[in-house]
Amino acid sequence: MTQRGTLSVAVIGTGRMGADHVRRISQVTNGARVSAVVDVDAERAKSVAATVEGCTAYTDPAAAMAADDVDAVLIASPGPAHEAALLTAFEHDLPVLCEKPLTPDAASALRVLEAEQKLGHRRVQVGFMRRYDAEYIKLKALLNSGQLGRPLMLHNRHRNAASPPGFTDAMLINDSVVHEMDVTRWLLDQEITAVTVLRPTPSDNAPDGLADPQFVVFETDGGALVDVEIFVNCGFGYQVQAEAVCERGTARIGDGHAMVTNAAGRWGGTIAQDFVERFEEAYDREVQAWVDATRRGEVTGPSVWDGYAAAAVCEAGVRAQAEGRRIEVELIERPALYR
Amino acid sequence: MTQRGTLSVAVIGTGRMGADHVRRISQVTNGARVSAVVDVDAERAKSVAATVEGCTAYTDPAAAMAADDVDAVLIASPGPAHEAALLTAFEHDLPVLCEKPLTPDAASALRVLEAEQKLGHRRVQVGFMRRYDAEYIKLKALLNSGQLGRPLMLHNRHRNAASPPGFTDAMLINDSVVHEMDVTRWLLDQEITAVTVLRPTPSDNAPDGLADPQFVVFETDGGALVDVEIFVNCGFGYQVQAEAVCERGTARIGDGHAMVTNAAGRWGGTIAQDFVERFEEAYDREVQAWVDATRRGEVTGPSVWDGYAAAAVCEAGVRAQAEGRRIEVELIERPALYR
Amino acid sequence: MTQRGTLSVAVIGTGRMGADHVRRISQVTNGARVSAVVDVDAERAKSVAATVEGCTAYTDPAAAMAADDVDAVLIASPGPAHEAALLTAFEHDLPVLCEKPLTPDAASALRVLEAEQKLGHRRVQVGFMRRYDAEYIKLKALLNSGQLGRPLMLHNRHRNAASPPGFTDAMLINDSVVHEMDVTRWLLDQEITAVTVLRPTPSDNAPDGLADPQFVVFETDGGALVDVEIFVNCGFGYQVQAEAVCERGTARIGDGHAMVTNAAGRWGGTIAQDFVERFEEAYDREVQAWVDATRRGEVTGPSVWDGYAAAAVCEAGVRAQAEGRRIEVELIERPALYR
Amino acid sequence: MTQRGTLSVAVIGTGRMGADHVRRISQVTNGARVSAVVDVDAERAKSVAATVEGCTAYTDPAAAMAADDVDAVLIASPGPAHEAALLTAFEHDLPVLCEKPLTPDAASALRVLEAEQKLGHRRVQVGFMRRYDAEYIKLKALLNSGQLGRPLMLHNRHRNAASPPGFTDAMLINDSVVHEMDVTRWLLDQEITAVTVLRPTPSDNAPDGLADPQFVVFETDGGALVDVEIFVNCGFGYQVQAEAVCERGTARIGDGHAMVTNAAGRWGGTIAQDFVERFEEAYDREVQAWVDATRRGEVTGPSVWDGYAAAAVCEAGVRAQAEGRRIEVELIERPALYR
Repeated sequence: MTQRGTLSVAVIGTGRMGADHVRRISQVTNGARVSAVVDVDAERAKSVAATVEGCTAYTDPAAAMAADDVDAVLIASPGPAHEAALLTAFEHDLPVLCEKPLTPDAASALRVLEAEQKLGHRRVQVGFMRRYDAEYIKLKALLNSGQLGRPLMLHNRHRNAASPPGFTDAMLINDSVVHEMDVTRWLLDQEITAVTVLRPTPSDNAPDGLADPQFVVFETDGGALVDVEIFVNCGFGYQVQAEAVCERGTARIGDGHAMVTNAAGRWGGTIAQDFVERFEEAYDREVQAWVDATRRGEVTGPSVWDGYAAAAVCEAGVRAQAEGRRIEVELIERPALYR
Repeated sequence: MTQRGTLSVAVIGTGRMGADHVRRISQVTNGARVSAVVDVDAERAKSVAATVEGCTAYTDPAAAMAADDVDAVLIASPGPAHEAALLTAFEHDLPVLCEKPLTPDAASALRVLEAEQKLGHRRVQVGFMRRYDAEYIKLKALLNSGQLGRPLMLHNRHRNAASPPGFTDAMLINDSVVHEMDVTRWLLDQEITAVTVLRPTPSDNAPDGLADPQFVVFETDGGALVDVEIFVNCGFGYQVQAEAVCERGTARIGDGHAMVTNAAGRWGGTIAQDFVERFEEAYDREVQAWVDATRRGEVTGPSVWDGYAAAAVCEAGVRAQAEGRRIEVELIERPALYR
Repeated sequence: MTQRGTLSVAVIGTGRMGADHVRRISQVTNGARVSAVVDVDAERAKSVAATVEGCTAYTDPAAAMAADDVDAVLIASPGPAHEAALLTAFEHDLPVLCEKPLTPDAASALRVLEAEQKLGHRRVQVGFMRRYDAEYIKLKALLNSGQLGRPLMLHNRHRNAASPPGFTDAMLINDSVVHEMDVTRWLLDQEITAVTVLRPTPSDNAPDGLADPQFVVFETDGGALVDVEIFVNCGFGYQVQAEAVCERGTARIGDGHAMVTNAAGRWGGTIAQDFVERFEEAYDREVQAWVDATRRGEVTGPSVWDGYAAAAVCEAGVRAQAEGRRIEVELIERPALYR
Repeated sequence: MTQRGTLSVAVIGTGRMGADHVRRISQVTNGARVSAVVDVDAERAKSVAATVEGCTAYTDPAAAMAADDVDAVLIASPGPAHEAALLTAFEHDLPVLCEKPLTPDAASALRVLEAEQKLGHRRVQVGFMRRYDAEYIKLKALLNSGQLGRPLMLHNRHRNAASPPGFTDAMLINDSVVHEMDVTRWLLDQEITAVTVLRPTPSDNAPDGLADPQFVVFETDGGALVDVEIFVNCGFGYQVQAEAVCERGTARIGDGHAMVTNAAGRWGGTIAQDFVERFEEAYDREVQAWVDATRRGEVTGPSVWDGYAAAAVCEAGVRAQAEGRRIEVELIERPALYR
């Protein structure tokens, strides 16, 4: 399928997430460019816009969305600003990627929901990025396959090395556990019907005023039980794990980046079946590295010397194989260009 | 740093690898486009060109390289055609990504080496893609850090489920073990000085005329000893593993996608330190999925309903936390738009 | 320290557990023998006694405990019979190993508690065998070391392939979760102060009348929170896992028989430091195999031929090492005695 | 089967291994006792004998073997003394467990081989204890099952934290690699036909005069290829691993104590099918701990208080389950006897 032309995106909000999305769209994403950035802080907007060719800085989201060279909007401003930005985007009927949360509370989310319905078609993708994680995708596929039967329980671990200053009990739910809420709904394709929060005596490493860790239990309309260990001062790192317990087996993700299942008397995982599966990302990275270096006017990576040396070693290898003995490799002296 | 404009690439060869690179540059890579494809088979060249907007089909590499809208060349034609294509690219002083092998033998590789030296600067990146694999990159970084001391041995496993028809003993070296040759040279930063090939009685699953598996030993000018199990009819899948044995520890990659070390009385691996490290690829995939859907005129991914439901569950969660009891979640009925 | 003479044990109850303990004491345990077995089923008692030299069968526990050649009692009769047997053992001041449960309810357990206190010294070891499991012992040692800080939560998985006929909800607690109750108290050195049981919609594989799986939460007087997944028809096998979440790290046991910790930015486990640690059990098994075979009048295991062949290969190895080349091994023809 | 009476063993040699075997037979092994110990050092023999009831010290192996209360002999003296001790044991037709090596060289081993053949039946078990290791036993069973097809290669790792003083290149073969020699012969049921030793530049941590690590290759009469990394100053611990590469899969042992296979598109291991498999060793240890404590006049392990507490928590658990709510546990105050 032939893709349409490059997508011109307005990024609203140029804080940590917004600036990172500007970098991503400009340097990583295929088929898109940042044509506008918006921030109430005009200086910040300008300095971010300056990093991208042909990008205009705005302080007013509405002005950016009205611009001719804006095809789509990425909202990365603080949560309280989302509702207004979303409604404006709806006026222009622009596609939106809206960072989570959609809005800070259910009432405002409901207003957005109604506005999009009036539009008559979906325009918004909400930024629950775990749905795009390779491991969660594998787990979802396994659950959907029905291979392990119906999911009965979902055990989650969500650990951060340390919480940022000012982190509160409510933020533990709204900023952290919200990911497990979405993931639960998505993985199980069920709505959450009740929530219970249990608290052990806090860790001595918990900052004043924060009861850390906590243990949150969800019930769902499909009868599943979901537990979440949320521990934002665990000290040892960032760790997100999920174990689905199904009628005929379990599957766990988040341990060293590979899904491990228990089923039919065996624990373990799958082996890639070809080099495409195993090295697809390496190929992507290789070509991107070449394009990036070339655009910078540089040459990096394996050189002609490396190609020559491999050819010489191969010749020795084939002889060693044919003659059944040790063969020495002969190389010319390494030229200055390749040192 | 502001990037220069989009790189226009001529892809030479539209077989399996070439066609895949056309797809990659068009749909995955940031900052590049395919402006020309070349194949001796004119029909194939045309049909591949038709999948990309603004892409011209050629049968002659030299004609493509002379075109105005060609900034760089990706050579994915059969090995014997590489030398001519490389020399032509040098005439035009074009940057080249050349699929491995550079050329089929050491003598021709040497001619390319001399030609690039005459040019006076490097123009070629050779397609040894393992150097871009996340795990090999981690292993290389660990070895370079000196943390485990000098590498003494490198044990490699290279396994394919089944070999393609017509695979020969020499291809086992030239097409398969060549990857370990390059990786050895790159990981250790040493040249290979001798090769020995040992052969057990072949597997009953080895096709006629192929002694499979084989066991290849390299010696290096740094005094390291490298062994490679090459087994291209192992039946169970594709598996590439490497274990570096250093003076103070070992590190192994290729077991379920995480590097495992032995050092200082402990085996294990590192834990990500923040969500960027853990979920960076998910963010990349999220934004790419949004751009791709938007360019197709579709909306996919988490919806406003998902954003609303998360907000409602968060509200219940914060109340459950504050009141120390189970709180039921209240949701409106799911509108038709989101079913 | 010189041990006293062999301990003569009366085993009360010769059902599955009792008969197994008779076998264990007779064939595995060092320093003990079974001098008496007791069962209300006289025939069964006799047939078990017949497997052990010098063992008498009884139907009355009191008669067995009064016998001259009984130094200690192992109670493996059904739970309701434990109280009477324990009180009789106290009358004879005999050491007791009492299979779990001590007694079927708290009131009767309290009576035993009072009786032992009247005796003035401990006489009973209760059969909570998980405290003797190598992995639980490692986890306990790690928690006791204080290395990871105070334990805050303990996540447990307790899975059986299938439940026996007639298994009830109450048995899920009394027969299965009771192990996690004891292990919680022992690992944390804290009393359990409250219990909550949560239930997802049961698995379709749960037998009628059994809500399986269930999720049990304990609170402790030290402020820890403990959760137990109990799933007795999981289909895939028997699996017992525990993960302690502490202030500075976590430790998990039950995944393929090695404790895995998360701490200080790394996941992993310890490496044995010498062959005694790694192969101690192999030595124990080797000597036991030799003693067992010898007592049966047999010779098994590595033969003189194996010793000779190893010596011949060693000689070749030392020459290969000294001469830097491949050395062939010379063996005489294998004599008939060793074929 | 009724076992014959307790086996009375003479242990020849009371160095590290000998003394450990005396302890093992006295305190771990079922069905045997040490009735005699022999050492050229009379004082050492006496002091070891004094730790065992009814054990006599000798300086002459022949005298010990002639004693009435000696049924069997365990030879743990230095290798050069083995031949004489074995021949004497043959004269008395005594069963022997002989520590490895059988004798220090092939010529003397051959003399023992001939002597045992003259005896007309096997009398000797050689102390290659890896054949009794649980993991090697599993690997052997898997290979014997034929499930993975014929073994083609065997990769071995044999690592020690540090070598003892005076360790030589020849000892690397005779004391260390000898284990892989035996294990190869046993696992594959094939004889080794040739040996090659390869050496990287030694580690800086290798002591003077020792080339460490080395890489040893065996060929077998069944056409298998076996490689051994021997690294006795690896620094990080003691590690013994073996990976069998078969026609349809591989199996590796020695990584954190569980066999991991690659087969049919999946990596992983088996899950225990019942509690006996999972906790058999815990039961053995539990009963042994009880017997040992009882013989010392002590009571250890879970107490009646633990039994009572478990009963009380169970009662709360069953109520929590039945009533669907949190139930508090009621315990009496802990009596002094159990504090």
